[in-house]
Amino acid sequence: MDTEHKLGLIGCGTVGQGLLQILHDKKDYLRDAFGFEARVVAIADKLKGTLLIPEGIDISEVLALLGAGKGLAEYPKATPAQVEPLDPLDMIERTDADIIAEMTYTDIKTGEPATSYIKKALRLGKSVVTSNKGPAALHYREIQELARQNGLHFRIEGTVMSGTPVFHLAESGLAGNSIREVKGILNGTTNFILTKMETEGMDYGPALALAQKLGYAEADPTADVEGFDAMAKVVILSNVLLGGSLKTTDVPCKGISAITKADVEAAKAQGFRYKLIGHARSENGVVTAIVSPQKLPLSDPLAGVMGAQNALTLDTDLMGKVTIQGAGAGKLETGFAILSDILAVHRC
Amino acid sequence: MDTEHKLGLIGCGTVGQGLLQILHDKKDYLRDAFGFEARVVAIADKLKGTLLIPEGIDISEVLALLGAGKGLAEYPKATPAQVEPLDPLDMIERTDADIIAEMTYTDIKTGEPATSYIKKALRLGKSVVTSNKGPAALHYREIQELARQNGLHFRIEGTVMSGTPVFHLAESGLAGNSIREVKGILNGTTNFILTKMETEGMDYGPALALAQKLGYAEADPTADVEGFDAMAKVVILSNVLLGGSLKTTDVPCKGISAITKADVEAAKAQGFRYKLIGHARSENGVVTAIVSPQKLPLSDPLAGVMGAQNALTLDTDLMGKVTIQGAGAGKLETGFAILSDILAVHRC
Repeated sequence: MDTEHKLGLIGCGTVGQGLLQILHDKKDYLRDAFGFEARVVAIADKLKGTLLIPEGIDISEVLALLGAGKGLAEYPKATPAQVEPLDPLDMIERTDADIIAEMTYTDIKTGEPATSYIKKALRLGKSVVTSNKGPAALHYREIQELARQNGLHFRIEGTVMSGTPVFHLAESGLAGNSIREVKGILNGTTNFILTKMETEGMDYGPALALAQKLGYAEADPTADVEGFDAMAKVVILSNVLLGGSLKTTDVPCKGISAITKADVEAAKAQGFRYKLIGHARSENGVVTAIVSPQKLPLSDPLAGVMGAQNALTLDTDLMGKVTIQGAGAGKLETGFAILSDILAVHRC
Repeated sequence: MDTEHKLGLIGCGTVGQGLLQILHDKKDYLRDAFGFEARVVAIADKLKGTLLIPEGIDISEVLALLGAGKGLAEYPKATPAQVEPLDPLDMIERTDADIIAEMTYTDIKTGEPATSYIKKALRLGKSVVTSNKGPAALHYREIQELARQNGLHFRIEGTVMSGTPVFHLAESGLAGNSIREVKGILNGTTNFILTKMETEGMDYGPALALAQKLGYAEADPTADVEGFDAMAKVVILSNVLLGGSLKTTDVPCKGISAITKADVEAAKAQGFRYKLIGHARSENGVVTAIVSPQKLPLSDPLAGVMGAQNALTLDTDLMGKVTIQGAGAGKLETGFAILSDILAVHRC
């Protein structure tokens, strides 16, 4: 297992820089503990530029450049050819990377351009790990089949709950179980807002504003607060863990924007707590899913999940309900999700 | 990976029968999903007798016999040699099993006779999976080294939280993280008692009596209520996950028998909840551990763990805190723990 892996990165924003940081800081540990060594040979980012250096990119130089707001074109001692701006599709063609880490932004309507990147990489003999929900939610089966045909890996830990290991858990520790149902808090922004509404008596508007101020919510919070982010994740969970073939349009979706402080307080008075729940179940071979605010009894393991944390309960035939709770986002956390999938490829 | 594994079982009580039940019920699924096939070739149980049949034991016959309260000597069409009572040490010598599942009762003072069984199996080229806390708490390093020297596996998922995957989680989904601290509810009996004391206003004595009536607590509840069961698990977690070298005598241990209804109610009035917590941490390379009742704020993920459930929070360098909650005991649940380790051996 003492192979050196050659990595190509598509997208070098928060997640990509988180991955690079970990590869840099834990280089010795990863080699000693797992016989894992990685050489980053290519980076393509539409805003930050391109690096294509088969001998290996100096990660600390890249982190310093990007940390200073500079582009990859200023990489020291690079030849013009090494920093020539490339479309990721061309980068995939030119690099000899054996693993592509796809970390561009999610387009949940088309899954593009990420899906094209992923397919091209797999056709050219490169395994792919991704944190992008689009390809996983829209084309998981097709892409997984393409990977299988080529004897390669397509892994998606970072698409749901960042590096909190949902898919690793199902395929390793819970292997042998049939999963009948999953139910989770899959969006940290809405959980943060609901927590503030309950614990600090805030109304929806101010709680959202606070989430935006602290960086938990974007300027346009629609994808989070209307449940679309959770919906994409529920589709992924349905298709990967329950064997479904759902499309995003199959999932009824209601967010939290209509929930008032009075609703939250009335629920609390009855011993319940509002959570935005993504729920998928398989019954008689039919998989259905829904995203909606639910009043959970406080005895539900998901009711205790506060702030920006995420959690998922898997209902299994042998182990009953198993719940995992952890971070749902973050630079190091999602960077680690990518690393965990690279390590899984390394183990095989 | 389409290998047929030959399994030898030592101990065929609740856990062993749980394992056999799963191997029987999920035979086709395990073959189709993982290319896993198992032939049970030997069973040795001090009370129920011995079966030594290299061609393979009919699992449904064994389950029927044991379910009817009969011994293995009544196995249909067995030759006298096949049911000759054997000490497990002799069974290990005579069987050609490549994996031994050690499922005898825990002796936390000596770790015997299980430790002798395990060492003998490893010396004779057989991997070992166990649910027995004794060998894992007292001799983990030594046994793991023996396994390594022989190119074999020694796995212990069932020793902590039954099949709720703690060790799989650390070695698979969280691989790459350094674990700094673990904190958990590791004993279902005491958590059941504390839950009843809080939610139904019971005093300690009646809550313990109810736990005994429902089969959660034994006639002599000392090991559970005084924290010794949790202590053994904390030692295992310390040594396996934190790299410690603790002995059981290194762990201060206080149980719940001195906690009164008034204590529980006073904590509740302050927004806290009593839990029996096993806690281990690594600081500057020094690992320390303790078992004690603690008043947790309700915001702690462990505070919401009610009834006989178990949970463990792992504090890691990259992912922060990750908590897993699930069953801590049970026939199928602990039988599955053994299966999950056998599947892990199969994957390697």
